[in-house]
Amino acid sequence: MDSVTIIAMVSIIMAGFTTSIGCMFPALGEGKSVATALTSIAQQPDAAPVITRTLFVGLAMIESTAIYCFVVSMILIFANPFWNHIILK
Amino acid sequence: MDSVTIIAMVSIIMAGFTTSIGCMFPALGEGKSVATALTSIAQQPDAAPVITRTLFVGLAMIESTAIYCFVVSMILIFANPFWNHIILK
Amino acid sequence: MDSVTIIAMVSIIMAGFTTSIGCMFPALGEGKSVATALTSIAQQPDAAPVITRTLFVGLAMIESTAIYCFVVSMILIFANPFWNHIILK
Amino acid sequence: MDSVTIIAMVSIIMAGFTTSIGCMFPALGEGKSVATALTSIAQQPDAAPVITRTLFVGLAMIESTAIYCFVVSMILIFANPFWNHIILK
Amino acid sequence: MDSVTIIAMVSIIMAGFTTSIGCMFPALGEGKSVATALTSIAQQPDAAPVITRTLFVGLAMIESTAIYCFVVSMILIFANPFWNHIILK
Amino acid sequence: MDSVTIIAMVSIIMAGFTTSIGCMFPALGEGKSVATALTSIAQQPDAAPVITRTLFVGLAMIESTAIYCFVVSMILIFANPFWNHIILK
Amino acid sequence: MDSVTIIAMVSIIMAGFTTSIGCMFPALGEGKSVATALTSIAQQPDAAPVITRTLFVGLAMIESTAIYCFVVSMILIFANPFWNHIILK
Amino acid sequence: MDSVTIIAMVSIIMAGFTTSIGCMFPALGEGKSVATALTSIAQQPDAAPVITRTLFVGLAMIESTAIYCFVVSMILIFANPFWNHIILK
Amino acid sequence: MDSVTIIAMVSIIMAGFTTSIGCMFPALGEGKSVATALTSIAQQPDAAPVITRTLFVGLAMIESTAIYCFVVSMILIFANPFWNHIILK
Amino acid sequence: MDSVTIIAMVSIIMAGFTTSIGCMFPALGEGKSVATALTSIAQQPDAAPVITRTLFVGLAMIESTAIYCFVVSMILIFANPFWNHIILK
Amino acid sequence: MDSVTIIAMVSIIMAGFTTSIGCMFPALGEGKSVATALTSIAQQPDAAPVITRTLFVGLAMIESTAIYCFVVSMILIFANPFWNHIILK
Amino acid sequence: MDSVTIIAMVSIIMAGFTTSIGCMFPALGEGKSVATALTSIAQQPDAAPVITRTLFVGLAMIESTAIYCFVVSMILIFANPFWNHIILK
Amino acid sequence: MDSVTIIAMVSIIMAGFTTSIGCMFPALGEGKSVATALTSIAQQPDAAPVITRTLFVGLAMIESTAIYCFVVSMILIFANPFWNHIILK
Amino acid sequence: MDSVTIIAMVSIIMAGFTTSIGCMFPALGEGKSVATALTSIAQQPDAAPVITRTLFVGLAMIESTAIYCFVVSMILIFANPFWNHIILK
Repeated sequence: MDSVTIIAMVSIIMAGFTTSIGCMFPALGEGKSVATALTSIAQQPDAAPVITRTLFVGLAMIESTAIYCFVVSMILIFANPFWNHIILK
Repeated sequence: MDSVTIIAMVSIIMAGFTTSIGCMFPALGEGKSVATALTSIAQQPDAAPVITRTLFVGLAMIESTAIYCFVVSMILIFANPFWNHIILK
Repeated sequence: MDSVTIIAMVSIIMAGFTTSIGCMFPALGEGKSVATALTSIAQQPDAAPVITRTLFVGLAMIESTAIYCFVVSMILIFANPFWNHIILK
Repeated sequence: MDSVTIIAMVSIIMAGFTTSIGCMFPALGEGKSVATALTSIAQQPDAAPVITRTLFVGLAMIESTAIYCFVVSMILIFANPFWNHIILK
Repeated sequence: MDSVTIIAMVSIIMAGFTTSIGCMFPALGEGKSVATALTSIAQQPDAAPVITRTLFVGLAMIESTAIYCFVVSMILIFANPFWNHIILK
Repeated sequence: MDSVTIIAMVSIIMAGFTTSIGCMFPALGEGKSVATALTSIAQQPDAAPVITRTLFVGLAMIESTAIYCFVVSMILIFANPFWNHIILK
Repeated sequence: MDSVTIIAMVSIIMAGFTTSIGCMFPALGEGKSVATALTSIAQQPDAAPVITRTLFVGLAMIESTAIYCFVVSMILIFANPFWNHIILK
Repeated sequence: MDSVTIIAMVSIIMAGFTTSIGCMFPALGEGKSVATALTSIAQQPDAAPVITRTLFVGLAMIESTAIYCFVVSMILIFANPFWNHIILK
Repeated sequence: MDSVTIIAMVSIIMAGFTTSIGCMFPALGEGKSVATALTSIAQQPDAAPVITRTLFVGLAMIESTAIYCFVVSMILIFANPFWNHIILK
Repeated sequence: MDSVTIIAMVSIIMAGFTTSIGCMFPALGEGKSVATALTSIAQQPDAAPVITRTLFVGLAMIESTAIYCFVVSMILIFANPFWNHIILK
Repeated sequence: MDSVTIIAMVSIIMAGFTTSIGCMFPALGEGKSVATALTSIAQQPDAAPVITRTLFVGLAMIESTAIYCFVVSMILIFANPFWNHIILK
Repeated sequence: MDSVTIIAMVSIIMAGFTTSIGCMFPALGEGKSVATALTSIAQQPDAAPVITRTLFVGLAMIESTAIYCFVVSMILIFANPFWNHIILK
Repeated sequence: MDSVTIIAMVSIIMAGFTTSIGCMFPALGEGKSVATALTSIAQQPDAAPVITRTLFVGLAMIESTAIYCFVVSMILIFANPFWNHIILK
Repeated sequence: MDSVTIIAMVSIIMAGFTTSIGCMFPALGEGKSVATALTSIAQQPDAAPVITRTLFVGLAMIESTAIYCFVVSMILIFANPFWNHIILK
């Protein structure tokens, strides 16, 4: 295997791995948050606006970790400095 | 194995891996959210519209992480820059 | 092993792997949702229509992640671009 | 190993793997659903018809993921396009 | 190893693997269902006929996933198309 | 290694593996069922005959999955079609 | 390694593996059953005879799965048809 | 490695493996049983004789699975038919 | 493989691995925190400002561990001293 | 590697493995038993003598499984029949 | 691979591994602490200052273990004595 | 590698492995026992002497399994019969 | 690979491994302690000084195990006797 | 690799492994003990001296298992008999 093939292969593997593994637990954390939000609204319907607002800020924070992974994945596919170095060599 | 075969092989593996692994926990998180929504409605039927609306926003957020994985998977199969580079070489 | 064999082999492996792994957790999530729906109906029989409707929307969302996996699996078996490229070469 | 042997070998492995792994969690999810149905009937015998009906729809949804796996398995054994391509070559 | 040996070997391995792995979780799911049935009968002896009937339908559904695995296992041992192809070649 | 040795070796391995792995979860499921039966009898001694009868039907169903594994195991040791084919060749 | 050594080696490995792995969960299931029996007797001393009798039937059922494993193990050590075939060849 | 060394090596490995793995869960199951016995005695001191007697029968049953493993282990060290066959050859 | 390829390959692998693995548990921890915040607000709506403020400080602390991983990942891709040493050699 | 070295190596490995793995769960089971004994004494100080006596019998039973492992370990180090056979050959 | 490449490769791998693995559980521990702090404030709003102060001290202690890992990681990238020894040799 | 090196290597590995793995669960079991002791004293301060005494006997029993491992470890380092045999050969 | 490279490589790997793995559970244990401290203060604000003092002693004990690991890690990087022996040879 | 390098390498690996793995569960056990101590003090402030004293004895017992591991680790680095034997040879 020559260098170009290796770098391409590794980039593909890590792009898929990073997104799939990195999206697992944010999905779980968001599921937990949403579930508790629903319980809380059912328990205290008057506090719905505060709960919903806090929920959305929290979801944004959790989603951010999934997005870090998606960003690294996209960098590896479309803006990979090692790939650029190798194919221009 | 020549380069074309390797890249094709790796792309197929990661396409399947990314979707299958990345869809596991969103399914679990959504299951948890839906389950809690049903409990909450049973507990407080009057709050059903608010609960349903919050549930759908939450499901959309969770589904988004599954969709990131599906997108990466589709990019690897149908718009793979490394594959294009190799077969045009 | 020549290229055709390798691509065929990898496609078969990933088709089975993607469906089997990807269907695990949706089944679990649906089981949880259905179970809670039954508890909720038993607890609040009057809310049965709302609960059932929400349940079906939720099941559809969860089933969608299983279907992503099944779709990737079918693409790998019957519409695999890498396979088409290799056997036409 | 020649190509025919490899494809046959891989098809056998994935047929067994897909069915066995893919049937694990539906069985668990159905067990959970049935268990809750029984608790719910014991708790609210009057709602038995609604609970039973919802249970059967839910079981059908969960069973569907097990059937996806069984279908992929049967395709790999009896309608495998890669196998057909290889033995006709 | 010649082709006949490989196919025989792989068929034996997958026959045992499919049955043993695929029977694990149905047993667990059935155990859960039976356990809940007993609790429910103790709690509401009057509903015993409905509970028992629902239990048997549920057990049949869960058993079906174990039977899929057993069927695949028997196909691999006694009606394996790849084996037939190889030994008739 | 010649074919006879390989097939014998694989048959021995899978016979032990199938029985040992396949008997794990039925034992657990039966333990759970028996445990709940005892709790139920203690809770509602009058329902003992119904509980005991339901328990035995349930145990038979669960035991059946263990027996599938034992059957596959015995087939592999004493009625293995691949072994018969090889030693008669 | 000649055939005799391989078959002997594999038989020893599987004899130990089958017994040790196959005895794990029956022990756990019996522990659970005995524990619940004790709780039930403490809760309802009058039902002790029924509980004890049901317990012993249940233990016998659970023990049976451990005995399947022990039987397979003994067959592999003392009545192994593959070993007899090899050393008489 | 000659045959004698291999058989000796495998026998040592499996003797240790069988005892260590096979004694894990009986210890856990006995711990659970003893723990419940103590709770039950504290809850219902009058039933102590029945509880103690049932406990000892149960411990004997659980211990039996550990003893199966110890027996297999001793057979492999001191009465190994494969070893006897090899060193007498 | 020459040095440049190896270092590039390893950097890509670790960049993806660090972000994906390192973002898993912060997402879970944040999910837990947000969930508890919602429960607490529902339970004590008057304390919402204090709860929200404490939540945001806590989220920042948890997010910081995810950011450590993202920083290491970015250093490995864009400011890798080993890569600079190798390509300038 | 000659036979003596192999047997010595394997004996050392299994001696350590057997003791370390085999002592794990007895320690856990004893911890559970002791913990429950303390709870029971706190709950019913008058039953302390019965509880303590039952605890010691139970601990002896659990300890016995740890001792089986220690015995096998000592046999492998100081009374290993395979080692004796090899060094006297 | 020459020494420089190996040391660089290993340093990159461990830098990523140490940070990603070492940050997992502090994030979880902090999540737990923050979650309990919020529950405690909701339960006893008057004790908020003491709770917050204790929380921050605790978070600092937990964060310190994450920082140990980050420090080791930075030492491996920017102040690695083995790397300095090798490149100066 | 010559015999002396192999035996030394294996002895070092197992000495560390045995102590580290074998000390894991005793620590957990003791933690559980101590924790329950504290709860019990808080619940029934008058029974403190009995609880403390029982606790110490229990801790000694649990510690004994950790000490078995430490003893095996010390034997492997300082009184290893295989090592003595090899270096005197 | 020469000796210097191997020792350097292994030292780097273990330095990172020891710190990252060894800091995992102390972080978890501290998180648990801090969390309980907060609950206890909320429940019994008057006992805050005693609770805080006991918490800090406990945290110091737990932190000590993390510090053992950090110390071993630093010894391996900056005061490694094997490294000193090798580079002075 | 010569003997000196191998022994050094293995000693470094086990020193780190023993400390990191062996410190995991003591940290967890201590965390549990400290947590319960705090709950107990909050529940029964008058018993604080007895609880604290019992806690410290318990922590010392648990810490002792971590110290066994640290001791083995230090012996492997600074007083390794195998290393002394090899470098003096």
